[in-house]
Amino acid sequence: MSEFYVHPTAIVESQLIGAGTRIWAFTHILKDAMVGKNCNIGDHCFIEGGAKIGNNVTIKNSNMIWEGVTLEDGVFVGPHVFFTNDLYPRSPRLFEAKHRYENHGWFTNSYVGYGASLGAAAVILAGNKIGEFAMVGAATLVSKDIKPYALVVGNPARQVGWVCKCGLRLSVKENFGECDCGFTYRLENEQLIPFELT
Amino acid sequence: MSEFYVHPTAIVESQLIGAGTRIWAFTHILKDAMVGKNCNIGDHCFIEGGAKIGNNVTIKNSNMIWEGVTLEDGVFVGPHVFFTNDLYPRSPRLFEAKHRYENHGWFTNSYVGYGASLGAAAVILAGNKIGEFAMVGAATLVSKDIKPYALVVGNPARQVGWVCKCGLRLSVKENFGECDCGFTYRLENEQLIPFELT
Amino acid sequence: MSEFYVHPTAIVESQLIGAGTRIWAFTHILKDAMVGKNCNIGDHCFIEGGAKIGNNVTIKNSNMIWEGVTLEDGVFVGPHVFFTNDLYPRSPRLFEAKHRYENHGWFTNSYVGYGASLGAAAVILAGNKIGEFAMVGAATLVSKDIKPYALVVGNPARQVGWVCKCGLRLSVKENFGECDCGFTYRLENEQLIPFELT
Repeated sequence: MSEFYVHPTAIVESQLIGAGTRIWAFTHILKDAMVGKNCNIGDHCFIEGGAKIGNNVTIKNSNMIWEGVTLEDGVFVGPHVFFTNDLYPRSPRLFEAKHRYENHGWFTNSYVGYGASLGAAAVILAGNKIGEFAMVGAATLVSKDIKPYALVVGNPARQVGWVCKCGLRLSVKENFGECDCGFTYRLENEQLIPFELT
Repeated sequence: MSEFYVHPTAIVESQLIGAGTRIWAFTHILKDAMVGKNCNIGDHCFIEGGAKIGNNVTIKNSNMIWEGVTLEDGVFVGPHVFFTNDLYPRSPRLFEAKHRYENHGWFTNSYVGYGASLGAAAVILAGNKIGEFAMVGAATLVSKDIKPYALVVGNPARQVGWVCKCGLRLSVKENFGECDCGFTYRLENEQLIPFELT
Repeated sequence: MSEFYVHPTAIVESQLIGAGTRIWAFTHILKDAMVGKNCNIGDHCFIEGGAKIGNNVTIKNSNMIWEGVTLEDGVFVGPHVFFTNDLYPRSPRLFEAKHRYENHGWFTNSYVGYGASLGAAAVILAGNKIGEFAMVGAATLVSKDIKPYALVVGNPARQVGWVCKCGLRLSVKENFGECDCGFTYRLENEQLIPFELT
């Protein structure tokens, strides 16, 4: 097994944890959950078996990452982000709904692309894909796919701008954007695309 | 006492827990909390004394069920649903508000009917009643009573359709609805009523 | 060290805790977090080093109080209130964003004034100031400063009225308001100001 840190009060039942990852107090990682290298997982989290988490991911406190959720490398998950994997949930113990839980038909995946950020208390409805480097504002309800580099806010989410790979807001004029940090982008067919000036 | 499962890290101070119920990691159930049979209560939950929870209820992770909250049989409580029991809360330790906390006048009940579902991060303002089999969408703010079988979303909640007992969305035409699962309903005086075809 | 109560499952690493304060199950208080006298901190909370919490503060369950958050005396923090301290967060482990986390430039403070109340699941964007005795409704997104005594709701927050020091809603007519509890106020330049009748 690789070298990673587990706080004395955390429970780690998975052996699929990458080197250099740190897991903090009162967090519970279930069997077969996959967590990459060099991640940081805050207090009071719950990572379910079947969740897939890449390298260099930051997961702030009190997050639940369910089966069916994939987080690519470098994702930021703010405190208390809410994922779902059942669009029409019922108690599987309820007589009238039991038949829906006899197989995995109720189940829906979610996907968060490389380097994206999910703000505090954002809600990601199952079945949606968040593009690379996108930024989802705090308390935003994501109910459809989000473009790469898009900044989205509101309930439901609407796009209000673009962000740089570094996270700062990007001013795009005449289909061209340049961040103070040096990254440059062009806008083509309503998609933001990184490119290097020559 | 009945036979139920308690994870080694959970704290259960109530003796009013039904047979077959399972209580998971880092969850805390206070004295005099009532929990029925065959329930599943996820990690990091808090059930207060005076909460009343029926049979076959599913409570996902990180929920707090306060005194004054009643959940009927078969209810589904998604991750991090927020109940309240004080409409105008102040710190009871605050000098200027202490008088409001000298008796129980600040206190307001909430009620969730048989088989209803509350989506992730839904917020239920105190004093409201959620009808049987209703479905409250993720991140929805419930600030008034919800009809049986209603599907509600948004902040504040508005009704956008009907759901079947099984949880799936129901198409209602000419005051009649039939789910693929076989349940049938009629619409009368803007209420959905189950009935069986003869 | 002063006399305060710590539940056996809580972790308290700070020595800056005031007398009479109670800290409940599965809560984690980090080194150098400041907590005043006679506070109540519920289950599953996380108080970071650099957080400043006054006296007589009530912090309900599952709250995270980050570095940079100041709560004055008598504040009420409902269950699962979300603070933030980075307006454009990225994983600091993400190659493309690392330079933003080399110093503390990403960091933004928040401030909650004397006696204010934050409802369940409210979200406070970093950089905002909440005035004394203000009341933030459940599930409200605070994205700008809030006036003293203001009642705000919605996503984003908008002011819908005024509240008394005691927490009850206040009817203000002809620039004068009187609460059943006896406190009186006048409205001047769109600010509510307490005054005593002579």
